[in-house]
Amino acid sequence: MSETTPLPPGSTIGILGGGQLGRMLALAAYRLGMKVHVFCPDADSPAFEVTPHQTIAPYEDEAALARFAEAVDVVTYEFENVPAATAAFLAQRKPLRPGARALGVAQDRLEEKVFLTSIGVPVAAYRAVTSSTGLTSAVDALGTPAVLKTTRLGYDGKGQAVIRSPEDAVEAFQALSPKPLVLEAFVPFTREISVVAARGADGTVRAFEPAENRHVGGILRSSTVPAQISEALAWQAREIAGQILASLNYVGVLGVEFFVVEDRDLLVNEIAPRVHNSGHWTEAVCATDQFEQHIRAVVDWPLGDSRRFADVVMENLIGETTLPDQNQSGRGVRPHLYGKSEARPGRKMGHINLIRTST
Amino acid sequence: MSETTPLPPGSTIGILGGGQLGRMLALAAYRLGMKVHVFCPDADSPAFEVTPHQTIAPYEDEAALARFAEAVDVVTYEFENVPAATAAFLAQRKPLRPGARALGVAQDRLEEKVFLTSIGVPVAAYRAVTSSTGLTSAVDALGTPAVLKTTRLGYDGKGQAVIRSPEDAVEAFQALSPKPLVLEAFVPFTREISVVAARGADGTVRAFEPAENRHVGGILRSSTVPAQISEALAWQAREIAGQILASLNYVGVLGVEFFVVEDRDLLVNEIAPRVHNSGHWTEAVCATDQFEQHIRAVVDWPLGDSRRFADVVMENLIGETTLPDQNQSGRGVRPHLYGKSEARPGRKMGHINLIRTST
Repeated sequence: MSETTPLPPGSTIGILGGGQLGRMLALAAYRLGMKVHVFCPDADSPAFEVTPHQTIAPYEDEAALARFAEAVDVVTYEFENVPAATAAFLAQRKPLRPGARALGVAQDRLEEKVFLTSIGVPVAAYRAVTSSTGLTSAVDALGTPAVLKTTRLGYDGKGQAVIRSPEDAVEAFQALSPKPLVLEAFVPFTREISVVAARGADGTVRAFEPAENRHVGGILRSSTVPAQISEALAWQAREIAGQILASLNYVGVLGVEFFVVEDRDLLVNEIAPRVHNSGHWTEAVCATDQFEQHIRAVVDWPLGDSRRFADVVMENLIGETTLPDQNQSGRGVRPHLYGKSEARPGRKMGHINLIRTST
Repeated sequence: MSETTPLPPGSTIGILGGGQLGRMLALAAYRLGMKVHVFCPDADSPAFEVTPHQTIAPYEDEAALARFAEAVDVVTYEFENVPAATAAFLAQRKPLRPGARALGVAQDRLEEKVFLTSIGVPVAAYRAVTSSTGLTSAVDALGTPAVLKTTRLGYDGKGQAVIRSPEDAVEAFQALSPKPLVLEAFVPFTREISVVAARGADGTVRAFEPAENRHVGGILRSSTVPAQISEALAWQAREIAGQILASLNYVGVLGVEFFVVEDRDLLVNEIAPRVHNSGHWTEAVCATDQFEQHIRAVVDWPLGDSRRFADVVMENLIGETTLPDQNQSGRGVRPHLYGKSEARPGRKMGHINLIRTST
C-alpha cells in the first residue's frame, strides 16, 4: 500500500495477536482516541478482554482476514511469527506496519544475520547448518562453545542447543533438525543491553535509552535503566537501531538486543519487529512509552517524546500467581498485570516497574 | 454489603457510566489484570470502545441491573448522579464503592454543605432557598454578589445564576426554580485548588498533592502542580480531604475542590465521589494515578504510591477536534484523547499533560 495521511482519532487499528503486547498496544491506542480490533486464533487471549472488536480465527482463514481488513484502517502485529501469506494478504488490502520486509528478516535468524552484516552491523560469527557434516565443519570454524539455533520460531530460549565441545554436535543436531539451523559463535559478553526505537512514516527516528537486561533460562527477568555502559556505547547502540530502521524502511517500534563485549564492543544478538519486553520500563518514566510510540508510527502521527525522567528497573512476573499483596504497592512501584487466566511455569504474567527518583 | 477480601486479578469491576472517566477507570483496571463491565444508557459512550462486557440500558431497568450485578464482583461509578434507587438496588447485590452515603451527600449541594459543616469543614456561607421571599431574605443575610444554585444535577457551571444585586434575585429564582435551591455567599477567592484523595477499605488514606485549577465559564481548563500555595496550606487541604473520607467511611477516590481566600484560608467548594478532572495530571507523573488508586480501593488492594516525581500542567481539550498535529507531540507532552465520536462546544474531548522536568 502507498503512504497514508495521519489517521484521525476514531480510526481502527487492527492488531494481529492477542497476547500481552497486543493488549498493551490497545491500551495505548485508546489514549490516542483510537479503536482497536484484535485478530487472534485463541479465544482466551488477554487482549480480547479490552476490546469489543474481535476476530477469533486461524491466521490462515482468508475470509476472516478479509473481513478484518475491511473493518480496520491499518494493520500491525504484536509478534514476529505472523505467517508470510497472512501478511501479504492483509498488505494488499490495508497498510501493514511494520511492512513485510521487516517481518521476513526478523522471522529467520539466518536472513537476519545476512541482512545485518550487509548493512555493516556487527553480529556474532555464524554459519548456516543444513547437515550433520555441515555442523561439524561449522563447529571447526567457529570453535566451542557455540550455540546451534533453529532459524525460525525460536523464543525465550526455545529452539536452541549449546555445543560445549565438538562431541555435543551430533546430539544437538538430532535435537533440532530437520529444521533449518544456524550455528552462532559463543560471545563472551559482559552485559546484555537492548534498544527500543521507533521510526515514523516520515522517516523520523526516536530511540529510547538502552536498557540493561538480565536473562535467566533464556527468559528476560529484568531491565534496568540506565544501563551500566559508557555514554558513547549507549549512543552507538541507538545509532545502530536507527540504521536498522532506516535500512528496512521501517514504520513502528523495533527491539534490538545487543551483546556488550569487554564493555567496549557491541554485537547485535537479534531484532524483534514489534514492541519489546525490554521496553516495558518506558511505560513508567517516559512521556511517550513504547506502546504509544508504536501506535503513533502506525497511524502516521508525529513520534512522541521518548526521553526518560527517572531511573527505573522493570521486573517480569514469571509463572507467578499475581496476588494483590505481592509487590503491588509501595514506594515508586507500578505494576502491570496482563489478565492471563492461568499462571504456568515460565509464563509472563505481568511486570513491575520500580521508579527510582532522587527525592 | 459486608467487607470483602481483596479481589484477585481476573475479577470483574462493574462501572456505572460510560464517559471518559469510566473509560480511564477501565484502562487502569486492565493494568491490574482486572476485567471491566460498563453499564450506560448511551450506546455511543467512549467506555464501550474499551470492553467487550457491556450493558446498554436505562439506570432504572431493574432486570438489566440484576444481570449486571450478577456479572460483576464489585460496582463503582464515574458520576455522582447515579439514581439513589439504582445505587440501593445494586448495593443489595454486590459491594458498591464508594457507598450510598457518599453518593447521597455529593448529589445534593445542600446536604453536602450541612454534612461538611457538621464535621467542622469550612464552606462558604449558604442558605437553603425554597421560595422567592426566602431568596430575598437569604440575599439580605449573605449580601451580594452571591450565587444561586440548584441543589442537584449541576455540573460545569450549569444550574447556577450569579446575583450581583438584590434586584437580580427575582430573575435568578425564576430561571432555576421550582428546583430546590441554595444561595451561596460570594467567596473572594485568590485561587482555586483541589485535592484528589483515596481511602482504602482498610481505612488507609493517600492524598495526591493539591492542583491549582483554572476555570473558564465554569469549565475546568487547566490544573497545575505544584499549586502556588504554602506547604502548610497544601497539607491542610490534604487533611481536610482525609477527614471527609473518614467521616463518610468512604472507599475509593474523592475529589475535593477548594477556594483559597487571601492565600491563607480554605473553603470547600464541592466534593465529587469519583475520580476528578483535576486529578488527570496524576496519570503522567505518579507511580499510581488517580484511576488506578480508585480501582485499588474498590478491589480492596493496598493503595499505591501517590507521590509526584515531576512538575506538571494538565490542559483540557474542550470542544476541539483533536487532530494529530495539535499539540500531541513535543517535549514532555502526553496527550489523552477520549475517543468521542463528535466534538461539540464545551465538550471535553481529551486532555494533555505537560511534564516539566529539570533536565
